Amino acid sequence: MSNIPPKAVVLLSGGLDSATVLAIARQQGFETFALSIDYGQRHRFELEAARRVCQSLGAKQHRVFQIDLRQFGGSALTADIAVPKDRSDAQLHSGIPITYVPARNTIFLSLALGWAEVLGAFDLFIGVNAVDYSGYPDCRPEFIQAFAEVARLGTKAGAERTGRFVIHSPLISLSKAEIIRRGVALGVDYGLTTSCYDPDSAGRPCGHCDSCQLRRKGFAEAGRVDPLPYRD
Amino acid sequence: MSNIPPKAVVLLSGGLDSATVLAIARQQGFETFALSIDYGQRHRFELEAARRVCQSLGAKQHRVFQIDLRQFGGSALTADIAVPKDRSDAQLHSGIPITYVPARNTIFLSLALGWAEVLGAFDLFIGVNAVDYSGYPDCRPEFIQAFAEVARLGTKAGAERTGRFVIHSPLISLSKAEIIRRGVALGVDYGLTTSCYDPDSAGRPCGHCDSCQLRRKGFAEAGRVDPLPYRD
Repeated sequence: MSNIPPKAVVLLSGGLDSATVLAIARQQGFETFALSIDYGQRHRFELEAARRVCQSLGAKQHRVFQIDLRQFGGSALTADIAVPKDRSDAQLHSGIPITYVPARNTIFLSLALGWAEVLGAFDLFIGVNAVDYSGYPDCRPEFIQAFAEVARLGTKAGAERTGRFVIHSPLISLSKAEIIRRGVALGVDYGLTTSCYDPDSAGRPCGHCDSCQLRRKGFAEAGRVDPLPYRD
Repeated sequence: MSNIPPKAVVLLSGGLDSATVLAIARQQGFETFALSIDYGQRHRFELEAARRVCQSLGAKQHRVFQIDLRQFGGSALTADIAVPKDRSDAQLHSGIPITYVPARNTIFLSLALGWAEVLGAFDLFIGVNAVDYSGYPDCRPEFIQAFAEVARLGTKAGAERTGRFVIHSPLISLSKAEIIRRGVALGVDYGLTTSCYDPDSAGRPCGHCDSCQLRRKGFAEAGRVDPLPYRD
């Protein structure tokens, strides 16, 4: 038995979900390498949040990787398209909204995989959630399973059988309220996180985009006060 | 029946293989959107070659996407690690060399998938080859099949069943000589391409890296003269 903790790459947006995932990976005994992606997102305040979360939870390393997905556009988060506000509960749970960024989680997991290979890590963590989510296809369990096959077959370690990649998605079947309760128990300070797609110039969340709505509903259901200073 | 040709995204490095793939995609009737990746590779002359190849073969559009994989390193192509030279045939066909870039084709296919979603394209072309190749795990048919599942499950079009992604790898079971014969028949000017991992400052190929060796052997077996001005 080795006393060296295994390494894990944790995709960390700076939002509520991924902060919780970082805390879970730490609790499970991993040495955590947090990877944030500066993809030209409208809500780049989340990168600052990611830094604060890493400091607070004690990640071993935090890397902000630059990849400007505005080179492709095609989403309200990466092109000059308005972020939808105040959608009804039915709207929130029907179809894939314009905030979907084409192939985003495939691209992010690929980058996490590349860094993991360089680090000699075999565990990737991602905060996807298929319950209180925005309907994005790349948040579903079957997608995560398919990507695990890609990781196994498309890497040196996988081909040489020197290691087996595991894609951890510990939030995938939790409600937002359950995620919040889990994070609070692990000491996550949600005041350091940000989830808004359309914050103002001071970084204050709008309270009305899909992400804010799902977050607020989650805090209400968890019987907790969201510490963020919403604009409204 | 529509007369509008289907769109395809073609990963185009500027090398021999991907130039041939572009010609094949054109021959198959696709409107081709060529995607070259400026990933900080040592041999960035290939991006100039990609431009020349697109002009010569008549791609509808050519996009050079910036993503600096030197942020991770871990390869002779993206870090300060020497490119191996004059390896024996046995060495060329055993193990995965240090020119392997961690998760490169996973990352490149992810980017091609993202652009395809924005364009409304469902066909991706990649010039991987599992015969006369460098032993890279992400050039094998099982990897390509696994990525096709990711594309199906991780995209809006896949989830909404409005289209089915196909990953075309028309070279995968051809020898280098067969690829060259095929390309010549389709009018590919291999003098416009470059395959060297370690060109000099004028872009002239070294003739001794794995990629040059495989290329030269291919031309010899095809009974053709390689038009490139090798340094030796």
